[in-house]
Amino acid sequence: MDEIAIGTVLLQLLVLFALAKAGGMLCERFGISSVIGEIAAGILVANTFLFGWLQMDLDMSLFEILAELGVIFLLFSVGLETPFSELRKVGRTAMLVAVLGVILPFFMGFTYILALGHGQIEALFIGAAMVATSVGITARVIKDLDLTRSIESRVIIGAAVIDDVLGMIVLAIVVGIAAGGASGILDIVLVSVTGVAFVVLVIFFGSIVIPKARVRANERRNGQADQDPVVCVKKRRFALSPLPLAIIVCLALSFAASYVGLAAIIGAFLAGMVFAEFRDRWPCHEDFHPINEFLVPFFFLFVGMSVIIASFVEVIVLAVVITVMAVFTKYIGCSLGSLKLGRGSANIIGVGMIPRGEVGIIVATIGLSMAVISPSMFSVVVFMSMATTIIAPFLLTWAFRRKYGECGPSGEPVERPGAIG
Amino acid sequence: MDEIAIGTVLLQLLVLFALAKAGGMLCERFGISSVIGEIAAGILVANTFLFGWLQMDLDMSLFEILAELGVIFLLFSVGLETPFSELRKVGRTAMLVAVLGVILPFFMGFTYILALGHGQIEALFIGAAMVATSVGITARVIKDLDLTRSIESRVIIGAAVIDDVLGMIVLAIVVGIAAGGASGILDIVLVSVTGVAFVVLVIFFGSIVIPKARVRANERRNGQADQDPVVCVKKRRFALSPLPLAIIVCLALSFAASYVGLAAIIGAFLAGMVFAEFRDRWPCHEDFHPINEFLVPFFFLFVGMSVIIASFVEVIVLAVVITVMAVFTKYIGCSLGSLKLGRGSANIIGVGMIPRGEVGIIVATIGLSMAVISPSMFSVVVFMSMATTIIAPFLLTWAFRRKYGECGPSGEPVERPGAIG
Repeated sequence: MDEIAIGTVLLQLLVLFALAKAGGMLCERFGISSVIGEIAAGILVANTFLFGWLQMDLDMSLFEILAELGVIFLLFSVGLETPFSELRKVGRTAMLVAVLGVILPFFMGFTYILALGHGQIEALFIGAAMVATSVGITARVIKDLDLTRSIESRVIIGAAVIDDVLGMIVLAIVVGIAAGGASGILDIVLVSVTGVAFVVLVIFFGSIVIPKARVRANERRNGQADQDPVVCVKKRRFALSPLPLAIIVCLALSFAASYVGLAAIIGAFLAGMVFAEFRDRWPCHEDFHPINEFLVPFFFLFVGMSVIIASFVEVIVLAVVITVMAVFTKYIGCSLGSLKLGRGSANIIGVGMIPRGEVGIIVATIGLSMAVISPSMFSVVVFMSMATTIIAPFLLTWAFRRKYGECGPSGEPVERPGAIG
Repeated sequence: MDEIAIGTVLLQLLVLFALAKAGGMLCERFGISSVIGEIAAGILVANTFLFGWLQMDLDMSLFEILAELGVIFLLFSVGLETPFSELRKVGRTAMLVAVLGVILPFFMGFTYILALGHGQIEALFIGAAMVATSVGITARVIKDLDLTRSIESRVIIGAAVIDDVLGMIVLAIVVGIAAGGASGILDIVLVSVTGVAFVVLVIFFGSIVIPKARVRANERRNGQADQDPVVCVKKRRFALSPLPLAIIVCLALSFAASYVGLAAIIGAFLAGMVFAEFRDRWPCHEDFHPINEFLVPFFFLFVGMSVIIASFVEVIVLAVVITVMAVFTKYIGCSLGSLKLGRGSANIIGVGMIPRGEVGIIVATIGLSMAVISPSMFSVVVFMSMATTIIAPFLLTWAFRRKYGECGPSGEPVERPGAIG
């Protein structure tokens, strides 16, 4: 790195960040998630003169680390919106939707890639990448459609959240198998147990035992601490402020996850979930927003830069097939799970769970960095994630109109997303 | 970097960040600036088993970049608190205090190091490092002492701000001379002109021309935009939000500064000054706080890690001499400049300008990275900065009591800083 002048690094950071933000803004203008624009900026850099002009070939390691930090903080923030206590409330429908919506795409993706003659581990990764619905994108589409108060919306969000946890468990298992090169049944079982045990242990202690102990301790200490958390905070003037504590816990669990052989982001996600239980005591959600606004684009830029268009052309047919498969398996699984709410609602829920967004891409990035999936297969996953994210708002608007007509569930007229107009 | 597993990097980030925050908290507990604790954490890491255990020797480039980003954003934030329009209001006393408080330390430091037989460029850097009062630390001490409303406080803050701008100009010149290896008078003049021209041009366009043009454009467009900036913001829904814009401008001017051969932080500081003029339109001060809370500790850690205690032992006497010199030259220059306010006030102002804090260290870091000052000379500057920062609150409390007795300027009893009790 010593050979690269700081000026060069500043120019790289400047151009990449500015392109990502410009791409994101452009997409938002057309009602598409800004994530798409940020990935597109990365693809642009990697496949044009910009790559050479910015001397990106000199050293990518900085951007690798920035991307990793970005995705770690992103998953922490997703976790922050997923308190375990909320998860328990979401009823059986959401659970059924989530489980069927995970099993079907995973099984179909895995089988199809295996049938094409690829290796077991590559097939496992593609299956895992097809699993998780993006909570962020789903929630955003629902908000844009002003559907937040409907029953479908609650089921979709609940299922997307459970889906994320299941996705993390699937990822933990897949990474474990890939890293250990597990061949026998016994090895696979061992790896699965490690992954599940890590997730369960962190949730058990972080989201159940500690919050309960804390409530009890507060009750013992003084009756009012619970009603008035501010008093409690003010008393400890020299206690660690929320943001540094959150960063430390996030880095610690990320490291712990990678130490036991899981993906670091699983630790970050769980750290966020644990922190969500303490949001009265250590509110840090707002503080993560600016950090993410700076770091997260580097993750999506990095994803885009890993897509080599030349190698993608060969697999365009496969990409389309996988995308169609991702759409239908998710739709069928999730609408089957919610059929008892009626066909109209099941239709909305099935469609609402389609967008894969960042989670599928994250899974593929890990596979690529472990060199267990090929660059062209990586491009397939990125295509699938981007395509499902782009079509979701259109499909959801259609499903929604089909049930409610031109009016929202509350009877008010509904604003359509900008993309439709 | 490929050889370093992401797990190792996470562990390094975790331990360094946690130690920095712990050190900072400990210092704050004793009424000392947290900066001192963060530097101490870096010294601890570099000089104990931690360095080997964390495998810091594998690749420091990531931390170099994180440190650079940290200091760039730090200087941007300092600039944000320095709108040029405010600067013009601060009157002649502050200007006189600042100018005398810059000339005396620079001249004495330069002459002394030269007299010891060191090179001209090394002497220039030490002189430059002795120049700038830390606005942040001064403001904080004044706030801790509840002196904010006094005349002395206004002069100190005003002078510290002008002082910062002068310090940046001195740094620009010194870096230019060091980089160009300017030997003739003509070269030195050329470099000085480039540095001054960059600073003056950015201030002229960013802080005078554009804000005025904007006011005029707003007046023409509609009469109310000026009174109600919110309306103005809401109208442009798809405009770039403040934080990304601020980051882009900050990176762009940092790059521009390094491109014309100045220190990148000069661009960052000026970018902050320019942005300060637009705080109604693009408020981003709050947003930078979390980013700085994450990144800035890595700068001070990096500073601490550059201090090798073994090499420092040889120069302890020099360090003490330089510190004493830094204290007295600043004190004499600044109290001379404010003598017309009376001896009591001049005493307070002279003492209040003593802390060098981060700015002197930044200058020395640049010198070290350009290999024009030796590691032991770097340690001397770090010692001087830390020592002046630690003693400033004590001295200021003393000067303050001497004039006002046990009561504040407003007649109310005053809380002493924790360090005294």
